[in-house]
Amino acid sequence: MKILIIGGGGMVGQKLAASLAKDPLSRGDEVTLFDMAFPGHGGASAAQKIPGNVTDPGAIRRLAAGRPDLVYHLASIVSGEAESNFDLGWTVNMTAFRDFLEAFRAEVQASKGAYKPRIIFTSSIAVFGPPFPDKIGDEFLSAPQTSYGTQKAISELLLTDFIRKGFFDGMAIRLPTICVRPGKANLAASSFFSGIIREPLNGKEAILPVPDSVRHWHASPRSAAGFLRHAATLDTDLLGTRRALNMPGVSCTVAEQIEALREIAGDEVVARIKPRPDETIMRIVSGWPRDFDPQRARDFGFTAESNFHEIIRTYMDEDMPKA
Amino acid sequence: MKILIIGGGGMVGQKLAASLAKDPLSRGDEVTLFDMAFPGHGGASAAQKIPGNVTDPGAIRRLAAGRPDLVYHLASIVSGEAESNFDLGWTVNMTAFRDFLEAFRAEVQASKGAYKPRIIFTSSIAVFGPPFPDKIGDEFLSAPQTSYGTQKAISELLLTDFIRKGFFDGMAIRLPTICVRPGKANLAASSFFSGIIREPLNGKEAILPVPDSVRHWHASPRSAAGFLRHAATLDTDLLGTRRALNMPGVSCTVAEQIEALREIAGDEVVARIKPRPDETIMRIVSGWPRDFDPQRARDFGFTAESNFHEIIRTYMDEDMPKA
Repeated sequence: MKILIIGGGGMVGQKLAASLAKDPLSRGDEVTLFDMAFPGHGGASAAQKIPGNVTDPGAIRRLAAGRPDLVYHLASIVSGEAESNFDLGWTVNMTAFRDFLEAFRAEVQASKGAYKPRIIFTSSIAVFGPPFPDKIGDEFLSAPQTSYGTQKAISELLLTDFIRKGFFDGMAIRLPTICVRPGKANLAASSFFSGIIREPLNGKEAILPVPDSVRHWHASPRSAAGFLRHAATLDTDLLGTRRALNMPGVSCTVAEQIEALREIAGDEVVARIKPRPDETIMRIVSGWPRDFDPQRARDFGFTAESNFHEIIRTYMDEDMPKA
Repeated sequence: MKILIIGGGGMVGQKLAASLAKDPLSRGDEVTLFDMAFPGHGGASAAQKIPGNVTDPGAIRRLAAGRPDLVYHLASIVSGEAESNFDLGWTVNMTAFRDFLEAFRAEVQASKGAYKPRIIFTSSIAVFGPPFPDKIGDEFLSAPQTSYGTQKAISELLLTDFIRKGFFDGMAIRLPTICVRPGKANLAASSFFSGIIREPLNGKEAILPVPDSVRHWHASPRSAAGFLRHAATLDTDLLGTRRALNMPGVSCTVAEQIEALREIAGDEVVARIKPRPDETIMRIVSGWPRDFDPQRARDFGFTAESNFHEIIRTYMDEDMPKA
């Protein structure tokens, strides 16, 4: 099977590529990664790496011409950046996504029935906005509070309509906030959720920009790769025409995150977390979901961690730099 | 107040213009209509009429340069046509709508605070798809089953994000299926809901392409104009960041529609309705909402008819050609 990962140089893309390298979906998988840059370490070294930008229609048309059977689209401008750079967010997260769909549609239509890829898109729980029920169910409206969430909601709608018209198979995966992200902090407003675990474990201080009463919804990078793998082989007929699914995850407060860290790593590590309230981040995060009842995803076999301890241990097993 | 109605040549646009001519929102209202064509009768003769296409960015920029205080955007490719002509539907119903928002945003930003229009967009209950609850509430997801519904849902999201960023004030009105439409049948898959009342009342036969057990959600053209008028003066702070509202309407079956017609006009009129099942229309209509609980709209003062008899009488009073 030919597999293309757009955004394959990013954290989730690299995690997925490493997983596919270790445990292929089928014999003879050929994996291609497309991104603006790739990390130096050779984590997914068997994969072909194509540098390029999703806003370059020619590059996307060339990817479509390769007729990959399975296409992961993981590339986007993150929430904080889409909020501060309105035009860039819309260009990358919506215009380029629509151009991507049109490029693959053109290839499908030119093939006269010979080619129909499965397209799996990473959406986000940022499609939701308050007021929230205690747990967000599968029929709750998308009312995003950020441009990023709006762009994700629109991309879901676009993909779903192109699937309904028979151009592709596929689905959208609404990722929980991925935690603990390895490596450096990024421009996502959610970056601190990983930072307050990762940095202290690695002997560094971490800033906590929100009150520890903040509740949020998380899954590990390993679970994210697992969702994407599962979506590759799922019988999508089960989904009907509702192709955007809330994924399973762990609901906990920042205080609970910190207590889990304390139980696993001790007081000295927790002492490296420094509260420093940030009004902008507090405002953005206050509009984010806190808990879900992802019934459909569970029924269809998607799984995640069952508590935050497991999320921390996943980081320590898979991603924490060895001393 | 300067009022611009994009799509002002259409049925709802003409109804709104006539209402504003008869009963202005404020003293000295200047109403401008923009559309590809205008009906011959001079229903809204005081309004300036500008011919043009919403897909012409220059024309839209010139409209924005006029700095209308209140902008109604009613123009779209209808559902049946957007389904049969995929590219045209996306071009008119999404790309042109985004270009429209960008043109007004550019004018707002150039004004340095002097100009901030209210933009009122007509969305549709076609943003919803089955399975449905008995009554669709205000927090039910948008899962459209047509390209038209998808384009409306996307336009709502776009408008809401531009409002959230402070470029405009405004809202999106999710119109029920408007019934009884005066004039001729159009390419909307819903056209027959009006046809089975209008044609028999005017001595003509009408085709009924669906079983009479089909239940649907209706409001009159007069109510549609009323929603749009109310949206012009509503305190939009009440809406928070959820700017797309389900409007009030009447839920009834086709059989109930026909019985209301029989009670008002008699058996001879009803006998002009000829069942002729159409698989394409049945498939589209089977994905449409049947009933709503439009709590927020009612709380904010939007009103419609309370039964289908009233809807028929509204047509007979306002729009039926005099014998």
